[in-house]
Amino acid sequence: MEEKILELLEERRFTELKSILSELNPADLVEYLEVIPQNELLLVFRILPKELAADTFVEMDSDMQKLLISAFSDKELRDVVSELFVDETVDVIEEMPASVAKRIISQADPQTRREINQILAYPDDSAGSLITTEYVDLKKHITVADAFKHIKDTGPDKETIYTAYVTDSRRKLIGVVTAKDLLLSSPEQTIEEIMDENVIFAHTSDDKETVIQMFDKYDFLALPVVDNEERLVGIITVDDAIDVIQEEATEDIEKMAAIVPSDKTYLKTGVFSTFASRIPWLLFLMLSATFTGWIISSFETKLAIVPALMAFIPMIMNTGGNSGSQSSVTVIRSLSLGDIEFKDSIRVFFKEFRVSILCGIVLSVANYAKIMLLDNLLLGSGISNTVAIVVSFTILATVVFAKIVGCLLPIVAKKIGLDPTVMASPFITTLVDTVSLLIYFAFASAILNL
Amino acid sequence: MEEKILELLEERRFTELKSILSELNPADLVEYLEVIPQNELLLVFRILPKELAADTFVEMDSDMQKLLISAFSDKELRDVVSELFVDETVDVIEEMPASVAKRIISQADPQTRREINQILAYPDDSAGSLITTEYVDLKKHITVADAFKHIKDTGPDKETIYTAYVTDSRRKLIGVVTAKDLLLSSPEQTIEEIMDENVIFAHTSDDKETVIQMFDKYDFLALPVVDNEERLVGIITVDDAIDVIQEEATEDIEKMAAIVPSDKTYLKTGVFSTFASRIPWLLFLMLSATFTGWIISSFETKLAIVPALMAFIPMIMNTGGNSGSQSSVTVIRSLSLGDIEFKDSIRVFFKEFRVSILCGIVLSVANYAKIMLLDNLLLGSGISNTVAIVVSFTILATVVFAKIVGCLLPIVAKKIGLDPTVMASPFITTLVDTVSLLIYFAFASAILNL
Repeated sequence: MEEKILELLEERRFTELKSILSELNPADLVEYLEVIPQNELLLVFRILPKELAADTFVEMDSDMQKLLISAFSDKELRDVVSELFVDETVDVIEEMPASVAKRIISQADPQTRREINQILAYPDDSAGSLITTEYVDLKKHITVADAFKHIKDTGPDKETIYTAYVTDSRRKLIGVVTAKDLLLSSPEQTIEEIMDENVIFAHTSDDKETVIQMFDKYDFLALPVVDNEERLVGIITVDDAIDVIQEEATEDIEKMAAIVPSDKTYLKTGVFSTFASRIPWLLFLMLSATFTGWIISSFETKLAIVPALMAFIPMIMNTGGNSGSQSSVTVIRSLSLGDIEFKDSIRVFFKEFRVSILCGIVLSVANYAKIMLLDNLLLGSGISNTVAIVVSFTILATVVFAKIVGCLLPIVAKKIGLDPTVMASPFITTLVDTVSLLIYFAFASAILNL
Repeated sequence: MEEKILELLEERRFTELKSILSELNPADLVEYLEVIPQNELLLVFRILPKELAADTFVEMDSDMQKLLISAFSDKELRDVVSELFVDETVDVIEEMPASVAKRIISQADPQTRREINQILAYPDDSAGSLITTEYVDLKKHITVADAFKHIKDTGPDKETIYTAYVTDSRRKLIGVVTAKDLLLSSPEQTIEEIMDENVIFAHTSDDKETVIQMFDKYDFLALPVVDNEERLVGIITVDDAIDVIQEEATEDIEKMAAIVPSDKTYLKTGVFSTFASRIPWLLFLMLSATFTGWIISSFETKLAIVPALMAFIPMIMNTGGNSGSQSSVTVIRSLSLGDIEFKDSIRVFFKEFRVSILCGIVLSVANYAKIMLLDNLLLGSGISNTVAIVVSFTILATVVFAKIVGCLLPIVAKKIGLDPTVMASPFITTLVDTVSLLIYFAFASAILNL
């Protein structure tokens, strides 16, 4: 297929090229455009039917969009912008340098320009930043037949026609009607008779996470978003919600792995950007490991007396780190899915406490058995019984500490407005490392009389 | 609200209770049912209108469903099952013990029973397991007006009426028409004239991940699923796709944190189940840390000569572990989003190699500076220049090794059919821990002439 397209392009057989490209889904079409030489891109873009061209433009990455915009005449840019939905235009603008963004906004009609600027003004993580203004708006006194006529007239320019919103004269949201309701009602019924008055909506200032949770819970195709006076300002469609769900999950995963999140996909991110997103936490975590170094140094003379203690340090620290991140990661994910809240802290605490006791006991018994059977009996390492007991007790205490810190830190972080995800594995690991060493050396000093 | 409901229930004011509950969205209604005493649950469930009752039943967790089913008469169970969509019935059945599952299936009508059994037969991770059979099926020669009539007649029992599928006499999928296409066409046009013949579909045997990627890419409200002969067997709706997206992300996050994934939400999982999902990896990782213990033991006599070396072990291991999991987690997420594939291995390798060199240089220089300025100049630790050099070189080598293993292991795992996510942080950490110690001691032996 790619070769076919390149061949037709090279031979300038544009009619055939157009008919092939026009059959494609925009998301697939973009992948073929990526193999076309950059200087031919505008040429190919120009032969696409207007609507398909705009839909394809939306699917492009920002580099390709920038390239095209810089090649567009004002008229061409205006044509594309006029085909885009407002939220799509906003998405494009957000990725562009200021000068390009200005040029795009200047080509929009005055009404659209106002809406673009309004959406751009909402904070990045808010529901407001996700809305589009092209929804079907109905009045309650009209009939189903009128509603169909209205949808037929205005539908082509709406992002979805499957959910229509009923507003009063002050634009307050008073009801919702699905296309299914309309189709299954008789033409003479009024909207008021069939609309659902129990409207579930988000506020422009709600967090993106809340939006995701609402789509997850209510299975909507679109979520209405209102301002402080409960006036409808826009809707969020399910396809955009899916993008946000994927982005937020990726962001959480990156933060848990001590990466500064970025918007671009892996292969589109340059080496330097990837480096820049990884080095801050690596550096911070490396330097914070200074504490463990100091603790070990200060215990050096005692370690020299019982050198066997040394060999268990990595194992103790890893076990603590793994135990803690199991709890923190579970709690962080549950927080973001809305499964737990601050008020559940005590339940979470008790649950993790009991789980940690179980895990701690199994691990310390397994460790004791391993030292006695594998290290001593099989390999003749000659580790004393007291050392084995010190290590086992340390494991129990470390696991309990790690799991409790791991579950509480994210909840507390969220409560005081910090990012719970940053509290995940990397940060907790450093804390648990330090404490587990202190526990180890305290037990060692006490039990071995060092 | 909760108190109001409990009060009405206690005073047996069922008419008022019914009118309050009937206004609620099923997803909200379920939350109120959770506060109702178990022995009153069936009573309240019985007063709900049939359709709402079924919709609410779907939203319940499996414990509440089981409780109700055991209290249902056969007639009641049949009524609920007949209101459910086939995929919903399958979801309920999958969570039930065999005897309850049998009873549910026996109450379905023969056609539904066949469909349930077919869906249950698809592998758990396949597109087939996600389908429902209640889609709108059109023939190409009928007119738009006929199509509307068909939708009006059969629509109430369809999971979505917004996308209709056109099949030929052998049930082969030949086109797709959206409700928007229908609404914006004139009544006398035929389906063949307006349908999109470039149908994008999944196969029953496709992986869930593929389904997610298709929803992500094409912004569908429903995805058709065909069998090996390209006959349409069912559709996956976007609300179910969202559930799968969330479940898969949670599962990936859990695996990355060395947890055996489970289906239930955190607070609904018992202490013992939580323990059981965490202990296998903790135990495995603890025991595999035996290697690092042995390496340290075998180096004991040399460490005794330069005890300063000991203090850096945790820092080196953590830095290696963090570097590796940054790469592995990024690659795993990109694999599951479909951003990278096996054919990108070489690009990924070169990219990670360059990133690792950059990170490694910055970290080792920072480490050298920290030892010289903080440890020595400020705290007078007296760490020798050669030890600082050994540590810094080890960091560079460890970071490069960790990042390369971290990026390649998941890609190779996926290629040979293993789960790339299990290759993430915990497993890679153990490998990197071992290798980083070997590197450290090799450099130390060579440079310090031990």
